[in-house]
Amino acid sequence: MKNESKAVAAQPERSEHETDAPARGAAALKNLVHEDLNRVNQVILERMQSQVPLIPQLAGHIVAAGGKRLRPVLTLASARMCGYDGARHVNLAATVEFIHTATLLHDDVVDESELRRGLETANAVWGNKASVLVGDFLFSRAFQLMVSDGSLHVLRILSDASATISQGEVHQLLTANNTRTDERAYLQVIEAKTAALFAAACQVGAVVAERSEAEEHALARFGQGMGIAFQLVDDVLDYSAEQRALGKRIGDDFREGKVTLPVVMAFERGDESEKAFWRRCIEELDQTDADLEHAMTLLNRHGCLTEALARAESYAADAREAMTIFPDGPIKTALLDTLESSLVRTA
Amino acid sequence: MKNESKAVAAQPERSEHETDAPARGAAALKNLVHEDLNRVNQVILERMQSQVPLIPQLAGHIVAAGGKRLRPVLTLASARMCGYDGARHVNLAATVEFIHTATLLHDDVVDESELRRGLETANAVWGNKASVLVGDFLFSRAFQLMVSDGSLHVLRILSDASATISQGEVHQLLTANNTRTDERAYLQVIEAKTAALFAAACQVGAVVAERSEAEEHALARFGQGMGIAFQLVDDVLDYSAEQRALGKRIGDDFREGKVTLPVVMAFERGDESEKAFWRRCIEELDQTDADLEHAMTLLNRHGCLTEALARAESYAADAREAMTIFPDGPIKTALLDTLESSLVRTA
Repeated sequence: MKNESKAVAAQPERSEHETDAPARGAAALKNLVHEDLNRVNQVILERMQSQVPLIPQLAGHIVAAGGKRLRPVLTLASARMCGYDGARHVNLAATVEFIHTATLLHDDVVDESELRRGLETANAVWGNKASVLVGDFLFSRAFQLMVSDGSLHVLRILSDASATISQGEVHQLLTANNTRTDERAYLQVIEAKTAALFAAACQVGAVVAERSEAEEHALARFGQGMGIAFQLVDDVLDYSAEQRALGKRIGDDFREGKVTLPVVMAFERGDESEKAFWRRCIEELDQTDADLEHAMTLLNRHGCLTEALARAESYAADAREAMTIFPDGPIKTALLDTLESSLVRTA
Repeated sequence: MKNESKAVAAQPERSEHETDAPARGAAALKNLVHEDLNRVNQVILERMQSQVPLIPQLAGHIVAAGGKRLRPVLTLASARMCGYDGARHVNLAATVEFIHTATLLHDDVVDESELRRGLETANAVWGNKASVLVGDFLFSRAFQLMVSDGSLHVLRILSDASATISQGEVHQLLTANNTRTDERAYLQVIEAKTAALFAAACQVGAVVAERSEAEEHALARFGQGMGIAFQLVDDVLDYSAEQRALGKRIGDDFREGKVTLPVVMAFERGDESEKAFWRRCIEELDQTDADLEHAMTLLNRHGCLTEALARAESYAADAREAMTIFPDGPIKTALLDTLESSLVRTA
């Protein structure tokens, strides 16, 4: 999930797919909930305080520095689109961001063997243990915020999402460095580790607005489709020659031996020598910069990047479809534009 | 908190302080809630399942293997002592054990430098990252169980305890290898990382039984005093010559550079050469087996172990005092005996 920072840098940019609407995307959505978001940032700053000074220091490093706040914005916008005019969505949006941040901190934990390989992560600054424990603190704060909101329905949605995320993270650990990972396993991982929180973030908006079960589920489905599309695009971006041309860092997943959809496809479609190449690079992590180049050549030769993007588009289509039950309006438009902009990040 | 396993091995044993009552201690308490505890174990086994096979494997290693189940037993016994005859306490006791287990897994995370020193932890088997993520899963499961219980009051108690525990864990990180730690900081750490969950575990028993606020707080105070006493004794045991004579492993805290109360006292009371000794061993971790011997000599010379035990006794006295508002009965007696047995573990 640390691809997040990469994604921040990646948008928005001109592209052949780009129209004015998607270009506005997330920025327009943020503008529409601007005041709410300021209040969310305030709650985040207040609630990450502790008598133990290392906690706000370390948490501030990752949480207050900014980030896109995409997930809390989804909660705020969903609530507003549903006509909510109260204040509960602010704390719940902060909750969503705390869960996301705790996940980021824990996802960056590395084992000795990986440290030896010289990976750099945020945890390198503070140490694994401090990052884990501050992540636990943020996670606990998230639950305190939810409890103070007082809705068992919201608590159920977000505690279920948390359990799903952690299972997805463990599952991802098992697919890493494993070229036998198939498409189904990859999709299960990203549905759990990424899409579940997008879905919950959106659904909670309908819950605070006391909308029908159908509308709740429509927003959950929108978030789910958007989350999967978002992660698929993120995974493609890591092998994008266009990204590199723009000076963006690529190849992180490759260097870590992450098995993302493009790699799954390239491995399945590759001949024996190509399979051996992927095994060496991904399983044994025996690789050079030239290998990243070769990987990109293979991914393009087998059409894996294009096909992964097409897959992202089909999940986005489902997300769009889910939104048809809501009447048109500026927030709905901005939510749909945000979805589009997440697709054209690839340029 | 991994002292837990040491503590399991440490009880019960003959001692000059020992009478029949404390010898029965935790075992008698367990017998009184035996059927409930079997149901707790069943819930734990069921709820640690996941489609991701590594989760039950790793969780089973730490949670199902047994352990004393002291915290869930406190929840069960507190509920029963309060006359509760429903079933809610079973899931909540499992919740308490899941929170404890998640904490154990995260507390065992080590940084590269520590791994280099050759420390052995449970995490060595599965790797830091898997342990962290499975800990997150257990923590999420704990919240799902609480949410399914449906009491916001219980949710508040346990989410507050979780936030306190994580702050205590981070605080402990700052006191480790730091001889400037004073008694106040040490007590803050153990109140947060150990006593808060003991207190919550007991308090929840009164909540499900719908007892008065006074009784709730009495049980929380009992758990708090017992938790502090328990941890103080645990910290003393790590330097106990009697323990070593019995073949028990000692010196773990010393080797890790943990600053526990005996060390705080010995450092304060030591002359310059003694302070230099503690700095070398605790801060620089430059130490040999002979240094442990010398540390024990200094701790005894300054009466630090005896005084730490006296401090434990004063917290136990407060715990006892808190229980006076409850009528006498077999469970109250067993709870008080458990408190006594935690004090005489030192032999």
